[in-house]
Amino acid sequence: MGEFDLLRHIYASNSTMEGRIIIPPGDDMGMVSLAGSAVLAAVDQLIDGVHVRLETTPIGLVGRKAVARSVSDIAAMAARPLASLASVALPRGFEERLAVELFDAMRSAAAALGCPLMGGDIAVHAVAGHPLTCSVTVLAEAVSPGPIRRDGARAGDSVYVTGRLGGSCASDGSGRHLSFPPRVQESLELLGALGTRLHAMIDLSDGLGRDASHIAEQSGVQIILDAASIPCSGGCDWRQALRDGEDYELCFTATGPVPDHIGDVAISAVGTVVSCTTAAEPRVLVRSGESEVAADELGWQHEP
Amino acid sequence: MGEFDLLRHIYASNSTMEGRIIIPPGDDMGMVSLAGSAVLAAVDQLIDGVHVRLETTPIGLVGRKAVARSVSDIAAMAARPLASLASVALPRGFEERLAVELFDAMRSAAAALGCPLMGGDIAVHAVAGHPLTCSVTVLAEAVSPGPIRRDGARAGDSVYVTGRLGGSCASDGSGRHLSFPPRVQESLELLGALGTRLHAMIDLSDGLGRDASHIAEQSGVQIILDAASIPCSGGCDWRQALRDGEDYELCFTATGPVPDHIGDVAISAVGTVVSCTTAAEPRVLVRSGESEVAADELGWQHEP
Repeated sequence: MGEFDLLRHIYASNSTMEGRIIIPPGDDMGMVSLAGSAVLAAVDQLIDGVHVRLETTPIGLVGRKAVARSVSDIAAMAARPLASLASVALPRGFEERLAVELFDAMRSAAAALGCPLMGGDIAVHAVAGHPLTCSVTVLAEAVSPGPIRRDGARAGDSVYVTGRLGGSCASDGSGRHLSFPPRVQESLELLGALGTRLHAMIDLSDGLGRDASHIAEQSGVQIILDAASIPCSGGCDWRQALRDGEDYELCFTATGPVPDHIGDVAISAVGTVVSCTTAAEPRVLVRSGESEVAADELGWQHEP
Repeated sequence: MGEFDLLRHIYASNSTMEGRIIIPPGDDMGMVSLAGSAVLAAVDQLIDGVHVRLETTPIGLVGRKAVARSVSDIAAMAARPLASLASVALPRGFEERLAVELFDAMRSAAAALGCPLMGGDIAVHAVAGHPLTCSVTVLAEAVSPGPIRRDGARAGDSVYVTGRLGGSCASDGSGRHLSFPPRVQESLELLGALGTRLHAMIDLSDGLGRDASHIAEQSGVQIILDAASIPCSGGCDWRQALRDGEDYELCFTATGPVPDHIGDVAISAVGTVVSCTTAAEPRVLVRSGESEVAADELGWQHEP
């Protein structure tokens, strides 16, 4: 089953804008106009066994992550959080105490992240053993000159990431993927500092290699990453930092000067945007010393 | 596991409005203000084995239902559809051909219902046998003097339903629950015709007995239904019409004259709203000849 083949099918079929949609599927958030305004929205799922391991993870962290990974999409657009909705399919026989703890965690994470819950749906699976599945929709509003899309990278831009990458999911299911702070505030400050010089942005959920390729592909450019410049988490080399997912840091391209910190968060220049000469070229190349490797040859891993 | 106890817990904890939320959880849609405007949003799930039976249902109808039941929430508020987002957890090993058919059906149903898809998320379950789970979020905008909430019913109102009730889910999983038209246009026409005389509304997903009790409870009133006036689908008696769910017709309360049709859809007066004298009283009473029964003693059934 090719998740991305499917997504491509959907996006291709949506290339004609329908109704009042300003940003169609394919970016971190969609956007639609309404009387005198516009609203951004995104949805992400958190499934036991796929994105989190219920067996070894405190339920409160599961609820927090379900909300935080959707809010990270708001950061990716440099938008301002507005509200959220949660739908949850509970395992049959799930303890009520745990369910209440899950919802309390979702509600308080949503409120703390500026996205208070304004609706939801609860169902119970038909059969014991079917997994906890949470789906969180977030709404946001654009901040001028945003929203920042994936398709705005231009040849000559530099490529940046926030924070440190890799090793977010420990082999026992624990790790930073359960407690990361979505970079909403940093993203808005970046937009304020760079304005129209901030060209493209994405949040790093699938790993820098794959996410940078989304920017490159949608912008019709190539990205050259410098392996030695990639800020790796302790214990990770650049290959892991590129391949591991679930960092929920930001990757962006910009022209002109960029600060080396926003608040406490480091910003690292990790590469450059160049023209794409042939369609057959890899979208993301990583240079390490004399060698050069296509990022998609490094493999991917983003399931805890 | 008490789905409704949990929902009550969540709503109770949300009684203080957070941020710019205008309608908090507990109605058919939430509503939040944004610069110069406001947006309504709701989410509903469709789970194999709970809301639909994949084994005996064409996949296109599954996708259509996933979208249509969320759009029905827009009708319940007398709001105007804007856009939608879909998250889908696919069974491991799900045929790609079926997945494409599912997404095509969701996309074309969404477009046809005025709610084009503007985003989504696709994941694949970790283990074979875990069920197809679709979650559809819909966005809408209010139409003055709406949105129409559940809590506006007043003593002296009459209670109405559209269409015919009961028997939507056949025992083999087929039936009208797979093909119902959400009453969006009818709802907007009702709002246009009645204006501020349209006091409260809900869509009938859990059965008239239970859904009328949501209006009664949230409005602090009692509803008396007249069994003989309930428009039953062929082969159903009033007990089934009250108890069966998944009709996706509208139930509303209003004062003054109400037309007996909107377009092709019949409107039936089925009861009256009275003051609630003690908290212990049932929220919905059904009168049939000389006898009177609390609607919640009829039992509920709304899973195919």
